[in-house]
Amino acid sequence: MKTLRDIGEDALIDRLIGLVPRGTDPAAGPGDDCAVIDQGAPTLLLLKTDALVEHVHFLPSAPPRAVGWKAAARVVSDFAAMGGHPGHFLVTLALPPETAVSWVEDLYRGIGDCLEKFGGVLAGGETSSVPTGSAAVISIAATGSVRREHLVLRSTAKPGDVLLVTGNLGGSLLGKHLNFTPRIREADWLVAHFKPTAMMDLSDGLAKDLPRMAAASGCGFVIDQSALPLTPGCTSAQAIGDGEDFEILLAMDSNRVPAMLKEWAFQDVPLTRIGELVPAGEGASLTGGWEHFKEGGTLAHPV
Amino acid sequence: MKTLRDIGEDALIDRLIGLVPRGTDPAAGPGDDCAVIDQGAPTLLLLKTDALVEHVHFLPSAPPRAVGWKAAARVVSDFAAMGGHPGHFLVTLALPPETAVSWVEDLYRGIGDCLEKFGGVLAGGETSSVPTGSAAVISIAATGSVRREHLVLRSTAKPGDVLLVTGNLGGSLLGKHLNFTPRIREADWLVAHFKPTAMMDLSDGLAKDLPRMAAASGCGFVIDQSALPLTPGCTSAQAIGDGEDFEILLAMDSNRVPAMLKEWAFQDVPLTRIGELVPAGEGASLTGGWEHFKEGGTLAHPV
Repeated sequence: MKTLRDIGEDALIDRLIGLVPRGTDPAAGPGDDCAVIDQGAPTLLLLKTDALVEHVHFLPSAPPRAVGWKAAARVVSDFAAMGGHPGHFLVTLALPPETAVSWVEDLYRGIGDCLEKFGGVLAGGETSSVPTGSAAVISIAATGSVRREHLVLRSTAKPGDVLLVTGNLGGSLLGKHLNFTPRIREADWLVAHFKPTAMMDLSDGLAKDLPRMAAASGCGFVIDQSALPLTPGCTSAQAIGDGEDFEILLAMDSNRVPAMLKEWAFQDVPLTRIGELVPAGEGASLTGGWEHFKEGGTLAHPV
Repeated sequence: MKTLRDIGEDALIDRLIGLVPRGTDPAAGPGDDCAVIDQGAPTLLLLKTDALVEHVHFLPSAPPRAVGWKAAARVVSDFAAMGGHPGHFLVTLALPPETAVSWVEDLYRGIGDCLEKFGGVLAGGETSSVPTGSAAVISIAATGSVRREHLVLRSTAKPGDVLLVTGNLGGSLLGKHLNFTPRIREADWLVAHFKPTAMMDLSDGLAKDLPRMAAASGCGFVIDQSALPLTPGCTSAQAIGDGEDFEILLAMDSNRVPAMLKEWAFQDVPLTRIGELVPAGEGASLTGGWEHFKEGGTLAHPV
């Protein structure tokens, strides 16, 4: 009997996609950071769901307000990666009965901190018990919106495009994974001034996510490991493999990159050229990054 | 330290609602079957999230295709309860690594069965591992739509309105909870021909849900227990307390009820008058029904 541990997350998703009716929306469906729904209006509807699991995405000792921030900020980061903004949030909590009420209240306060900063609102939710001893699960689904002309997919880059990342990579488990800043501000600037040919957010690490963007765009890739912007104290292996950076990986027409780097508006968040896309079948490969089901399923380090 | 077991689901939700920014949408927010978002179009956007937890909503021995049906059909039932229809679905799975791939594929097939029958489409999803031994969690979030003139809330009934239910009540754990039919067809007919003053779907049992509708509408209630439409073999106590009936509870102007019952279009699904709404502070109370966190959190009977 094959189990999820045997095949891993990406192969599982490939097997599931064809089993349920899909929409006819021409833009991104399963496989991009968000689903994109065209309702015929000037703004497109974005849909996203994301889950945090105790022991996998946070430890029981993590401050619940930070866990709530993380749960909401992961979704906000996905909207940023499409060039969009957060809208209405639905919060699903599956918690053991012995969970402290104050823990749940602080979790919600953390969700509220994030929505106040980035503009989403709570529209509803669902709470369910899980058996005593089971891991807590926090699942957040949300709508977002993006102006039609600002939408950036991960599948629309081409060979020769330059690869860049916002911020620094690596070391998420040293604390950043609980208090990162979704790159809404930076993505807004990008889509308004230097619209990338592709964007995605780095949630599972460059080693997992860059090959996904390249494959979605029908490209290979090369990166310059010595150019990677490292979180202070981190190695390039950590920058490639740790995951949960929640920085924006973007591709850009090479002839526009010098002006983009020159005019980049944010001194506190670097924008760094790390490589380029090449024709499919050429270029490099990366190993590492986070893959659910294959990793034993729990955090390797105390947070 | 107060825990969720001490306070229960409804009190928890009351404490959480104020901790996160809320939208200014005038229609239903947290507290109704779905959130209702007014985008200025002739159809309103509905949002819903719902979760199934192993040992709580289904047993490990349950056929996964039926579990998938149930996960999707619970959400479809909530759209029916607003007078609406399902749209785009997001499926979040939190599963232990030892889960069989075939189990997940059959789960998706069951979701697909439901969407094919009722018209929703898959827009995206998320998969995460949970630690070995933790309960599986299936969380489904979806958009729906309802024509503005068809929207029915649970908060708009008034004293004197007659209470009715579709179908039969009780005995969900004998099997119905895994293969129920969301009342989309019946709700369509109702909102087109005899628009109820309030509707909700019966998920936690009449004992929990009727007081919720009455309170939302600022009413009390009386019911005629001898009039309850019983699932064959069930007692009225089961009809009141079992939960997971997924029938529609509705309130209706009393002077329109005789014509409604006469013209009711569905011979295979009864529509039954069970009581009426009365002024707040008057009427009866009910005990029983399903409450998360207070019940020990696991199914009482093998399925």
